[in-house]
Amino acid sequence: MNRADRIIGNCTDTDAVVITNGSSPFLDPIFWYVTEQTSGTFEGSFAIISKDGSLDVVTGRLEETTARKGKGDVHVYETRDERDSVIAGLLKGCGRIGISGRAISYNASEYIRRISSAELVDVSPRIAEVTAVKDEDEISEMRKACAISSKVASEIPGLLYEGITEKEAALLIDSRMRDHGGSGNAFETIAAFGPHSAEPHHRPTDRELRKGDAALFDFGSKYGMYCSDLTRTVFFGEPDGVLRRAYNIVLRAQEAGIRKMTDGAPAKEADISARGVIDGSEFKGRFIHSFGHGIGMNIHEEPSVYDRSEGILRSGMVVSAEPGIYVPGVGGIRIEDTVLITKDGAERMTCFDKDLTVI
Amino acid sequence: MNRADRIIGNCTDTDAVVITNGSSPFLDPIFWYVTEQTSGTFEGSFAIISKDGSLDVVTGRLEETTARKGKGDVHVYETRDERDSVIAGLLKGCGRIGISGRAISYNASEYIRRISSAELVDVSPRIAEVTAVKDEDEISEMRKACAISSKVASEIPGLLYEGITEKEAALLIDSRMRDHGGSGNAFETIAAFGPHSAEPHHRPTDRELRKGDAALFDFGSKYGMYCSDLTRTVFFGEPDGVLRRAYNIVLRAQEAGIRKMTDGAPAKEADISARGVIDGSEFKGRFIHSFGHGIGMNIHEEPSVYDRSEGILRSGMVVSAEPGIYVPGVGGIRIEDTVLITKDGAERMTCFDKDLTVI
Repeated sequence: MNRADRIIGNCTDTDAVVITNGSSPFLDPIFWYVTEQTSGTFEGSFAIISKDGSLDVVTGRLEETTARKGKGDVHVYETRDERDSVIAGLLKGCGRIGISGRAISYNASEYIRRISSAELVDVSPRIAEVTAVKDEDEISEMRKACAISSKVASEIPGLLYEGITEKEAALLIDSRMRDHGGSGNAFETIAAFGPHSAEPHHRPTDRELRKGDAALFDFGSKYGMYCSDLTRTVFFGEPDGVLRRAYNIVLRAQEAGIRKMTDGAPAKEADISARGVIDGSEFKGRFIHSFGHGIGMNIHEEPSVYDRSEGILRSGMVVSAEPGIYVPGVGGIRIEDTVLITKDGAERMTCFDKDLTVI
Repeated sequence: MNRADRIIGNCTDTDAVVITNGSSPFLDPIFWYVTEQTSGTFEGSFAIISKDGSLDVVTGRLEETTARKGKGDVHVYETRDERDSVIAGLLKGCGRIGISGRAISYNASEYIRRISSAELVDVSPRIAEVTAVKDEDEISEMRKACAISSKVASEIPGLLYEGITEKEAALLIDSRMRDHGGSGNAFETIAAFGPHSAEPHHRPTDRELRKGDAALFDFGSKYGMYCSDLTRTVFFGEPDGVLRRAYNIVLRAQEAGIRKMTDGAPAKEADISARGVIDGSEFKGRFIHSFGHGIGMNIHEEPSVYDRSEGILRSGMVVSAEPGIYVPGVGGIRIEDTVLITKDGAERMTCFDKDLTVI
């Protein structure tokens, strides 16, 4: 079954599903998923999946050559009037139109309302159900993305020296990912030294690495359109005892969480289990984010893995496993792998030395 | 006047302007603009500008430390109910709420509708009017971003050799931008060799550089939160005569367009003038995109510079000037600078050798 079929098959109460792109960065990865494109920007373009599973792509002349390499019947417009009449034609007779409510802009949804009298239905959760389970081609791409990030994670101890800044370290990581064949960053690399590591989403600064610092690196290469995600925390010189204890707790929490991840398991169990390890320690309440999130073309997608998740893990899902402990003013520890859910549990797709590393 | 004041001052028919972030990549750069943040991801966060110019930031605990470094009163929520009640409180009494209709998702707009009985008004064009004119701090950041890209453009002839692939060349450009102090890519680098250069938005492949190829590189470094954008096209060995002629026409077209760019000029004049040069040559109809676009925190923003633009250029706007000629099956030429509009015309912020270069 092709991808357009899978999506419309999960949205059988709609007459069509419309995927839209705004201007960059407001581009919906689902557009690339259904068209099986690996190129193009496709701003202002539409992908329309009809009830019979047929796919139509409406795009400007700028993207025509690229569009014809992907799936779908390509309709090229020169003017807004041409675009409007093509889209009106494709949506004619629709009573209910599915939209990707998380991704489509308010303006694009109003545009569809003007062009069609159909009722709009947010089908983003149902699209996410489909895309959360990766097919073999996708898993193969993601293995490559993960292998690149893993190689760089192993190189980290050799990259660090006293006085290197967070920005410089992030730059080195980005270059290495490209040197190993990555097609870009899955997200902006986090390099956080000392107390900065207590901020989960810290952006690199000119802070220099000093003796006793925790040094946290959260990064991921893309390979093709797919993301990977890992976090390695190392120590530069002997750390404060509290950080040493935190490291070992986080490692135990990650293992406890991963043990709960298998086909058919409620997603929340991994979070609850890992959180139990941390909250049962002196670091109660210091794990201030979710255990994990799905990864694919998006760095954050379905399923969410947190203590109130209602989702069930399924074979073929790819998720992060990333507990952390954050002690304001002192430092933070996070250990993260990208894992693949299988019938027999979770398989780590990323790989690096998890032992507490003092450089 | 601070940024929140400038925005609400341009939306005086609203009681508040609400800026929202979805999940990455659906993050609104305006959030960073008004909070003057240079860090954080702020997924699911809100920035609310009230009629009196006050700014409130509603975010999760994950971003608390980062949020407190920026502008605005920070409200941290732990649960959805807490978030809802904070936002409902801030929007209480509003009759009309401005939203950034291009950026806000359908789901986020429906969320505001549920929480408030106010009428929603798309104010994205009015926000864009404000952000299109850069203040001194922004121009200073953009000069740095442009200087980094320019340095790399000058290095291009030295980076190329027979057999280098598009992917390898793009990787070298990305690494160099970082080496020169860039904080990341403003967009995915385009490297297009031979016939691939006839696709304006080509994504790098394993195609190797061969004698006679046009080699087109479209890239831009970020510096801090700000983008730069340039395109340099060089020839690897003596090109087909048609490409040589096209290069010189594009160069003349760019100069003709830039001459029309000054404070108070209709934006469309630059496009019309450049297009006139190309359409008056043997390459009539081969310039298949707009002359330019605004650049800032977004790589594409206001003003648009095309033949039907209704905007007026103003001092402090930063725009691209990028005519091109594309000959399918043969190759394409594009020459692009980032320029600053001033009272005395347009000043190139990027700089590289524009003479036809054969390597």
